[in-house]
Amino acid sequence: MAFQLHPRLQQDSIELGQFNLSRLLLCNDSRYPWFILVPQRPGITEAFQLSEKDQQLLQQESSLLAKTLAHYYQADKMNIAAIGNIVPQLHIHHIVRYKNDIAWPAPVWGKYEAIPYSKAQQQNVMDQIKEKLVNYLR
Amino acid sequence: MAFQLHPRLQQDSIELGQFNLSRLLLCNDSRYPWFILVPQRPGITEAFQLSEKDQQLLQQESSLLAKTLAHYYQADKMNIAAIGNIVPQLHIHHIVRYKNDIAWPAPVWGKYEAIPYSKAQQQNVMDQIKEKLVNYLR
Repeated sequence: MAFQLHPRLQQDSIELGQFNLSRLLLCNDSRYPWFILVPQRPGITEAFQLSEKDQQLLQQESSLLAKTLAHYYQADKMNIAAIGNIVPQLHIHHIVRYKNDIAWPAPVWGKYEAIPYSKAQQQNVMDQIKEKLVNYLR
Repeated sequence: MAFQLHPRLQQDSIELGQFNLSRLLLCNDSRYPWFILVPQRPGITEAFQLSEKDQQLLQQESSLLAKTLAHYYQADKMNIAAIGNIVPQLHIHHIVRYKNDIAWPAPVWGKYEAIPYSKAQQQNVMDQIKEKLVNYLR
């Protein structure tokens, strides 16, 4: 069974590239800089189902992404979460939070509707983040 | 600077024991089996601030805890999250979710009020989980 991105993730996000293990997605919601890592292994819903080696890779990729985003966006806080109640395919949210964002201090899920990026905004975010991660992304 | 548990975590949870790195807490909310890992390092708000070795330990302790809880409670889904918008001290939620729990499929935060355990219920949960993790907890 080959890995295939869940249709709902495909619909709600834009692919930025691939780390060794995970696909990096930009959530199409301009309210927050919101990125998602999806380990490219079929049939996985929980991180503990990955091999030990893959778990370690995921931890390293998550740490690199979170650190890069926190510094680049000057985050007040990073929110990092594997929820998956609606989309069971393992995916880890990495969300840059600010004390003056629309949902603060609540978590972002279920708070108002997403506001999609314009094409220009989207390209801008993609270019910036890809540049920061150029040594790690395929 | 020595590690001290944030007063809000102390207030809202019960200590179960300590892994090599993290303190294991039971959230005093009987609506969900809800556990929290707190790496016992001072001044840390994001996982990427930990040393590489500690990040790896945290990943291993989180994986062990999530797997143990998922199996013991026959979870429909584990929700694992580092939010910290209110309590900045790094702490990682591990929440057992069921398709018929009160908040499903939404995340649990901000959904209704916590329902504290009775003393007997609390002791019961603590005894069960400590037994499952007896080889790993101090």
